[in-house]
Amino acid sequence: MGAWETWLADEAARRDAAGLTRRLRPRGADDDVIDLAGNDYLGLSRDPLVASAAADAALTWGAGAGASRLVTGTLSLHTTLEQELAMFLAQPAALVMSSGYHANLAAVTALVDRDCFIVSDGHVHASLIDAARLSRAEIAVTPHNDVAAVAALLDQRRGGRRCLVLVESVYSVLGDAAPLVELAAVCEEHDALLVVDEAHGIGVAGPSGEGLVRALGLAGLPHVVVTATLSKSLGAQGGALLGSPALVEHLVNRARPFIFDTALAPAAAAGALAALRLLRSAPDLPARVRSRVVGLADLLGVEAPAGAVLSVPMPSPQAALAAQAACLDHGVRVGCFRPPSVPDGISRLRVTTNAGVPDDAWQRASDVLLEVVHG
Amino acid sequence: MGAWETWLADEAARRDAAGLTRRLRPRGADDDVIDLAGNDYLGLSRDPLVASAAADAALTWGAGAGASRLVTGTLSLHTTLEQELAMFLAQPAALVMSSGYHANLAAVTALVDRDCFIVSDGHVHASLIDAARLSRAEIAVTPHNDVAAVAALLDQRRGGRRCLVLVESVYSVLGDAAPLVELAAVCEEHDALLVVDEAHGIGVAGPSGEGLVRALGLAGLPHVVVTATLSKSLGAQGGALLGSPALVEHLVNRARPFIFDTALAPAAAAGALAALRLLRSAPDLPARVRSRVVGLADLLGVEAPAGAVLSVPMPSPQAALAAQAACLDHGVRVGCFRPPSVPDGISRLRVTTNAGVPDDAWQRASDVLLEVVHG
Ligand SMILES: Cc1ncc(COP(=O)(O)O)c(C=O)c1O
Ligand SMILES: Cc1ncc(COP(=O)(O)O)c(C=O)c1O
Repeated sequence: MGAWETWLADEAARRDAAGLTRRLRPRGADDDVIDLAGNDYLGLSRDPLVASAAADAALTWGAGAGASRLVTGTLSLHTTLEQELAMFLAQPAALVMSSGYHANLAAVTALVDRDCFIVSDGHVHASLIDAARLSRAEIAVTPHNDVAAVAALLDQRRGGRRCLVLVESVYSVLGDAAPLVELAAVCEEHDALLVVDEAHGIGVAGPSGEGLVRALGLAGLPHVVVTATLSKSLGAQGGALLGSPALVEHLVNRARPFIFDTALAPAAAAGALAALRLLRSAPDLPARVRSRVVGLADLLGVEAPAGAVLSVPMPSPQAALAAQAACLDHGVRVGCFRPPSVPDGISRLRVTTNAGVPDDAWQRASDVLLEVVHG
Repeated sequence: MGAWETWLADEAARRDAAGLTRRLRPRGADDDVIDLAGNDYLGLSRDPLVASAAADAALTWGAGAGASRLVTGTLSLHTTLEQELAMFLAQPAALVMSSGYHANLAAVTALVDRDCFIVSDGHVHASLIDAARLSRAEIAVTPHNDVAAVAALLDQRRGGRRCLVLVESVYSVLGDAAPLVELAAVCEEHDALLVVDEAHGIGVAGPSGEGLVRALGLAGLPHVVVTATLSKSLGAQGGALLGSPALVEHLVNRARPFIFDTALAPAAAAGALAALRLLRSAPDLPARVRSRVVGLADLLGVEAPAGAVLSVPMPSPQAALAAQAACLDHGVRVGCFRPPSVPDGISRLRVTTNAGVPDDAWQRASDVLLEVVHG
């Protein structure tokens, strides 16, 4: 057996011995489990308007865009989506990519290089961490939501290095919000650029689901940049960068993950666009999520989150796994996060609100959760 | 003006002064230009069967998969696509991702770390370069298609470090093929793993469009791994890794760009699957591409490529741009590559065969190209 086969086998054996092997479990289209694990917070992915907009786009434009954006893959569909996304988030301009992961890679790597300095919150998503690594900038990680630590690091930076600060508006695992107003002030003071990933903010945070950046009056500030995904509240696939036209032009010209990647498929772009329009025309959708998540937090005795992610701490990894299995036995799928996938070392259930779940099913799911967590 | 705005403005001014600013030009759905710039080599993106399979999937499954693959985003559709892709490429297993870019990032970063050694061909795609950088392995770049240089580097490596060799089967800009048999032999001898990106091989290289790895009898070898995209010949969006079940299981457990990314949208997965089935049931499609590309190469006096990318060297960047503009004036879109986007410093037109173009339009396009290049 070669070195590679031996290594793969050793790695697998180590994982198995530690009980950490993860396996893919395919689901069918008519799976009747109540899904409180995914991130389709508004239930829009399967909304008839959204699904049929996606279907129509595949018929009109084809299954793929056929090329990268700069070659011949930019469809008027992308441009429309960019305009409407920018308008909804009160940003001057937007650039759509093939995933939220790519949006983070593109934004960070186009903006900084090894002569720059990145200050990253300790809880940011893997895509921001990979983006920072790929940029080769010097990286400092702060304790979670510690504005003073960010300020101290920016104080210390040498020379006129460009500095980037990386945070999420609503954090993906714990569901808590970043102190964006304070962070933006510190960044302005230090001439640093604040990159806010609104993956879990859009559609659920802010009075109309416009995300925290806009809700807090930070949209359009030259020192605040937003990244987003189209794969969560907007129910499709893709990502976006939002900021000034100069910033977008810079990414178009310099972001390798944007330049050398096939454009987002028509169906995904059209699905996200339809979801966005639906959200604008149904401003009560975020309130529906809000009331469900607040009600469930209250029921389970945990803090109500800023967005739609409810984090329920469990006493041990085994207890978390057992609780997840018990929920599934009762027809409710929830997420389970254990070390090393939790930023603070605490195992937890991750329960997401899906506003598309009918009221009776939501009631049933709440009962199951209460029984499993506190029964 | 802050440091960031000043920097963005300076960068833009520098680009403008050098005549290098690139802009997005959206196209409509009924654009009547003949597209020989995109990578939809078989014309399948807009094939009625492919487009309607994509549309049906959006209606059945929704516009998005709703979550990452390990959480709840794995659809039976993904599993079917993985099985049929693996079968077509004669590989034991496959893992589908949201883009070809992501497939390369996932494969390389899951396999190597800073204690490993990567030998990369000088012409590989940006996604493989970014993947190598992100892995933090030591990287050595060889002259293009230089097997002896690969062997010499592998000879020198210290200790028992795991080594990865990165190549494409058919190169994206020049359209030439890698000496895969020789590379695989060198890798086997040195216990290194050969990663072959078949982005531009699948659908067009090999007697039935099965790509070069299978055509050369290298599929299924433990020291040869394949990455692929679903966004070129398969007309949709997405990427894949192909290799042993142990390799796939390893990526499922360790590849951050796979684990922390929303699963490929249903419409894209179904579109690629329909394209794959169509390709299997119409084994003359690759031959149609082959005869067109050989005919056009002959007409223009350039070497016939291994795949469907025809590279036409031009005397200067200005001449290349002017030729591209002249083609467009006559209703034909071709690609134009200039430094620094060409691996060898030579400006060129990049002409891709699209088997979906009707015969009379293909004839017209050939006439235009002959006139522009040699007129
Ligand atoms: C905070 C955050 N950013 C980015 C991403 C990546 O987005 P996408 O899945 O669209 O690639 C995710 C989740 O997947 C996320 O949770
Ligand atoms: C050789 C090669 N690998 C990977 C990719 C990335 O694939 P995708 O566009 O599906 O992300 C491309 C082109 O985009 C390519 O040309």
